[in-house]
Amino acid sequence: MLAYVTTDADVSSSLLSKMLASAVSKSLNVCVVDDHTSTNDTMAILASGASGVKVDSIQSKKKFLDALTDLSISLAKQIVSDGEGATKVVIIRVTGATNDLAAERIARAIANSNLVKCAMHGNDPNWGRIVSAAGLAGVDFNPDRAMLKLQDTTVFRAGRPLPIDAAKVSTSMNAKEVDVHLDCKLGSGETILYTCDLSREYIRINADYTT
Amino acid sequence: MLAYVTTDADVSSSLLSKMLASAVSKSLNVCVVDDHTSTNDTMAILASGASGVKVDSIQSKKKFLDALTDLSISLAKQIVSDGEGATKVVIIRVTGATNDLAAERIARAIANSNLVKCAMHGNDPNWGRIVSAAGLAGVDFNPDRAMLKLQDTTVFRAGRPLPIDAAKVSTSMNAKEVDVHLDCKLGSGETILYTCDLSREYIRINADYTT
Repeated sequence: MLAYVTTDADVSSSLLSKMLASAVSKSLNVCVVDDHTSTNDTMAILASGASGVKVDSIQSKKKFLDALTDLSISLAKQIVSDGEGATKVVIIRVTGATNDLAAERIARAIANSNLVKCAMHGNDPNWGRIVSAAGLAGVDFNPDRAMLKLQDTTVFRAGRPLPIDAAKVSTSMNAKEVDVHLDCKLGSGETILYTCDLSREYIRINADYTT
Repeated sequence: MLAYVTTDADVSSSLLSKMLASAVSKSLNVCVVDDHTSTNDTMAILASGASGVKVDSIQSKKKFLDALTDLSISLAKQIVSDGEGATKVVIIRVTGATNDLAAERIARAIANSNLVKCAMHGNDPNWGRIVSAAGLAGVDFNPDRAMLKLQDTTVFRAGRPLPIDAAKVSTSMNAKEVDVHLDCKLGSGETILYTCDLSREYIRINADYTT
C-alpha cells in the first residue's frame, strides 16, 4: 500500500510531519482488510508551496489538518472497500473502553474475527460474535455493562440481546457501509476502525492462483 | 470446545493437574481454526483409579504423560480438521526463534493469516506470505537468516526463494496434513501449532445462516 498526497500549500516540513502522523492515526493505521500488513505500507505527503498560501495560523492549521484527515479517511475507506472480495465497508466504533489503546485492541479483535466478517457478509445481526470478539481482546471488557448497536439499532445491552426485528436489521445491513458501535461503558477510551466483510471471492482471489 | 478425558489409572489429583497443563500447552492451547476463542473452551480429565495401576514412578509418570500428550494432540488435530470448511490440517513448526514465546507469536501470526490459509487451500507454495507473516509477528525475525520448508522441500533460505519444482511441491501440499517448518536461526525457541486452511465452505457456513 503506497499512498502519496500532494499539496501546493506552503507548510513547514515539521508541521506537515506532525499533521500527517495525526491523520494517519485516524485512517490508514486503523484500516484492516486481513491484517496481513506489508513492509512497504507507506503514506507520504509533499508540499510544493506553489500556491503561496501559508499554513501557519491556528485557523489555517486546523483547516488543513481537517482536510488532510478527511482525505486520509477517504483513502482508508477506499482501501477496505477494495479489499479482495469485499462487498461493504464496516465501520467499527468502540467507545467507553478503559483507554484509547484498549478501545483499539477491542476494535481490532472484532475486525480481525473471520466470524464477524462473515456475519457482516451475510447481513446477520450476530451480536454474539461481536461481543465475544471484544471479550477475547485481552483488555478490560464486561458484557454485563456493554451496549451494541448495528446500523443504529441497539441489539444488545447489559449482558442481554434485545428483542429486535431481525429481518429489518438484516435489511439495514445490506448496505455499502455498516456501522458497528460497541459502547463498553467502562471509561472514556474510544476509537474508530475501518474494515470489510469476508466473502467467497476473497478465497477465490487468494487461493486459486499460483505465484 | 469441551474435551473430557477419563482414565482408570490411579493418579493423584495434583500430578494429574500438572500433566494435563503440560499436555494442553502442546495441543489444545496451540490449535487454531479462526482464533475466535470461546469462554467455554475447556479440557478436563478424570481418573477413577479403578484399575489399581499406580502412576507414581518416574517411568510410569513419563509413560502416562506421553500417552496423555499424544491423545491431546490427536484431539487438537481433530478439532482443526473439523474446522468449518477445512480440507486439511496444517502443522506449523517454528524453530530457532529467540525464545519459545517468540516462536509461538510467529507461529500464530502465520496460522492467523487468511492469506497463508488460502495459499494452503490452493496448494500454493507461497513462501512470501509465510515469511511476511513471521515478519509482522512483532518479535525478532530476520528473513535474511530464515529457512522455510513446505512438506520437507526447502523453498526459502537466507532471504531468497530457492529454485523449486513448484508443481511438485504443490502436488505434495495436496494432502490431509501439510508441514510448514520455519527455522528463524536466531536462538533455540520453538513451538508446534496446529491449524487448517480457509475455503469457500467456511464462508458458506458462517455467512449464509441467520442466528
